[in-house]
Amino acid sequence: MATAMFTDCSTSTTAAAARFLPLNRDAVVLHSRRSVPLRFGPINSSLLRTTVTKCHASASPSVLPAAMAAETSAKIIDGKSIAKQIRDEISAEISRMKDNIGVVPGLAVILVGDRKDSATYVRNKKKACESVGINSYEVHLPEDSTEQEVLKHISGFNDDPSVHGILVQLPLPSHMNEQNILNSVCIEKDVDGFHPLNIGRLAMCGREPLFVPCTPKGCIELLHRYGVPIEGKRAVVIGRSNIVGTPAALLLQREDATVSVVHSRTKNPEVITRQADIIISAVGQPNMVRGSWIKPGAVVIDVGINPVEDAKSARGYRLVGDVCHEEACKTASAVTPVPGGVGPMTIAMLLSNTLTSAKRMHNFK
Amino acid sequence: MATAMFTDCSTSTTAAAARFLPLNRDAVVLHSRRSVPLRFGPINSSLLRTTVTKCHASASPSVLPAAMAAETSAKIIDGKSIAKQIRDEISAEISRMKDNIGVVPGLAVILVGDRKDSATYVRNKKKACESVGINSYEVHLPEDSTEQEVLKHISGFNDDPSVHGILVQLPLPSHMNEQNILNSVCIEKDVDGFHPLNIGRLAMCGREPLFVPCTPKGCIELLHRYGVPIEGKRAVVIGRSNIVGTPAALLLQREDATVSVVHSRTKNPEVITRQADIIISAVGQPNMVRGSWIKPGAVVIDVGINPVEDAKSARGYRLVGDVCHEEACKTASAVTPVPGGVGPMTIAMLLSNTLTSAKRMHNFK
Repeated sequence: MATAMFTDCSTSTTAAAARFLPLNRDAVVLHSRRSVPLRFGPINSSLLRTTVTKCHASASPSVLPAAMAAETSAKIIDGKSIAKQIRDEISAEISRMKDNIGVVPGLAVILVGDRKDSATYVRNKKKACESVGINSYEVHLPEDSTEQEVLKHISGFNDDPSVHGILVQLPLPSHMNEQNILNSVCIEKDVDGFHPLNIGRLAMCGREPLFVPCTPKGCIELLHRYGVPIEGKRAVVIGRSNIVGTPAALLLQREDATVSVVHSRTKNPEVITRQADIIISAVGQPNMVRGSWIKPGAVVIDVGINPVEDAKSARGYRLVGDVCHEEACKTASAVTPVPGGVGPMTIAMLLSNTLTSAKRMHNFK
Repeated sequence: MATAMFTDCSTSTTAAAARFLPLNRDAVVLHSRRSVPLRFGPINSSLLRTTVTKCHASASPSVLPAAMAAETSAKIIDGKSIAKQIRDEISAEISRMKDNIGVVPGLAVILVGDRKDSATYVRNKKKACESVGINSYEVHLPEDSTEQEVLKHISGFNDDPSVHGILVQLPLPSHMNEQNILNSVCIEKDVDGFHPLNIGRLAMCGREPLFVPCTPKGCIELLHRYGVPIEGKRAVVIGRSNIVGTPAALLLQREDATVSVVHSRTKNPEVITRQADIIISAVGQPNMVRGSWIKPGAVVIDVGINPVEDAKSARGYRLVGDVCHEEACKTASAVTPVPGGVGPMTIAMLLSNTLTSAKRMHNFK
C-alpha cells in the first residue's frame, strides 16, 4: 500500500539545524573517494571527522563542465552580513511595537541536562534575543527530571501571555518521549515551525503556515536578498529531512521553482543536481557536492556544517559544508560559505518567527 | 520572504478527483498546438471541449525517442479490474469485522443543492458502499440551506459512532464558507485525507497520516499491484494540486523515488518528464503529455479525465486523459487508460479509507 514508512530517519526537531544534520537519513558515507553511484547509509560520527577533509580536484575530471577550467569566481553569499541586517530590521520593528502597544516579544527555551553543546546553543539564542530586544526565558532542568516536569513548564509557557515562542532544546534525555513533549507546545508558539500542521500548510496551495522552519526560511531569504530569481527555475534540494530538506523543497515550490529532491536512494545524484539553477544541500556530509555536480552559473546554498579533522586548528577540527567550496567557487555564480552562510540565518529566522508570533498574538501590523 | 502564496489555485477538496482537475491551477491551455515552453493559465472550461481532441503524431518529431518508431505496445494498467479486486478484499474484510466484533463501517455524505453531477457522484459512492457492505448515510439539503445547518449535520456525524467517514460533496453553494465547513469534519473521520495535518504527516518522515488522499493513493496502489518498482526510480508528477499532484509527489518520495514536480511555471516540462521512469499526470488538460514526453519503457499513470467534443458520441463528448494515449502506448511500458484507469481506484480507496477508519476506531486488526 501507499503507506510504507521510513524506519531509519530521525524525527528530531530543533531550530539549530546544524547539529541535527549528521543525524539525518540522508547522510552519506563516501567510499574510496568517488564511487558513483554513491553508497549511502547511516552516518557514522567518527567518519565525519576522518573522511574527506578537503576537496580533490581530481574527481571525475571527464565530467567537469568546460567552464570550470576558466577559474571563474563565484559571488560569496554573505549570510553573516545579511543576518546582521535582518536582526537590525527586527530590532527596529520590536522598538516600534514596544512604543506603540507596549509589548515586547518573549522566547522561552527549555534545556534539560548538562550537554555542553546544548548549553552553548541556548546561550547563543539568549544572546541573539538580547541583541534585538526579545525577552528570553530559560528553564534549565536536571538530567534526571521527569517528562511530567518538562510538560509542566511547557504548559506554563503555553499559558504565559508574555511568551510568544517556545523552544525545547534537543536532544532530550533518553528516558523522555520527545514527540510527546514537542507536541505539547501549542502551535501558536511553535516558532520552530516543525508541527505537521505547519508542514501540511506549507505543502498546500492556498494555505498559510503559522511559522516557516528557520533554516529553510533562511535559505530562501538569502536567495531573495541576493536577488536570485526562483520562479520557473530548476531547483534541486539534496536531503529530505523534516527540518531542512523537505520544507526547503516545499518553499521553493511555493515560489514556483521546478523542484527535484535528491536523497540517499537517488541514483546518479550528480546528474540531477547538475540540471539545477539553484542547489540547496542539507545532508551533513563534508564536501559531497563537487564542482562537477554544479551547472555553470548555478546558485549554491550549503546548509551542511560538518566538523572535519584539522591538526592546524587549535580545536583540532574545522567546519566545512556539504559542498566542496573551492570547486563550487569555480563553477557556481554564487555560493554560501561555511561557516558564515546559512548558519547565522537560522537564528535570525528564529528571532523573526518570534516577532511574527508576538505581532500576530497582539494583532500588530 | 519565504511565504509568498499562490493566489490562483483552488482549495476545493473531494474524494472524486476527476471533477476537480479542471479547476486546479496547473491546468494548461494549449496554444497553436505545440508551443514550447507551453503557456499556462487558468483553465477555460469551454476550451476543454474544443482544443485537442486527438493526438497529433506530428508533434516534435525530431525529439521523439528512436524506440518510438518500433511501435511497441505498452501494457494497459487495468484500473477497473484492480479496483474490483480491492473492493472484493474490502468486502471480505468488512465481513470478518462484522463477524468478529459486530461492527459495520459507515460513510456519511452531505449533499447541498441540486447539481446533477454532484447527485451522480453521491449516488455512485452510495452504490459502491452498498457493494462492499459499508453503511451509507446521506443528508440532502436544499440549495438555500444555511452554513449553520450544514455544520449541525456534520457535528451530528462527528458524534455518531456508527459513522466512520464523512464526505461533504463539493462544490457547496457560493454563500457558504467551504473551508469552515470542511474544517468542521473531525480529523478521525476525514476519509478524504485532505486535512493539512494529514498532508503534513505525509510529507514528514517518521510520521503517519491518518488517511492518504484517495486518488494519489489509488495511483500508487496501481503501481504496487502491477509490480512497478518505485525505490530509486526517477518520478515526475505533473501538476501540484492539493488533492492529487502534491500528495502523489509526497507518496512517491515516501517510497524512495527521486521526485520532480512539473507545473504551470515549469520551463520545458517535456524535457524533465522524459527523464522519468514513472509519470503521474494530474493537470486536467486533454492529451497534453505526448509520446515525445515519455522515456521509452516508462510507466504512465494518467489521472486526467477530460471531456472533449465528439460528435460520434451520443453524449456529444468523450473522456480523454492528460496523456495522449495512442502515443503513450508506443513508448511507455505500461499506461493507464481513461476511463478505466485511475478513476475506479478513487472510489475503491475511499472505501478502503472508510474501512481503515472503522478498524482504527474499534482497534480491530
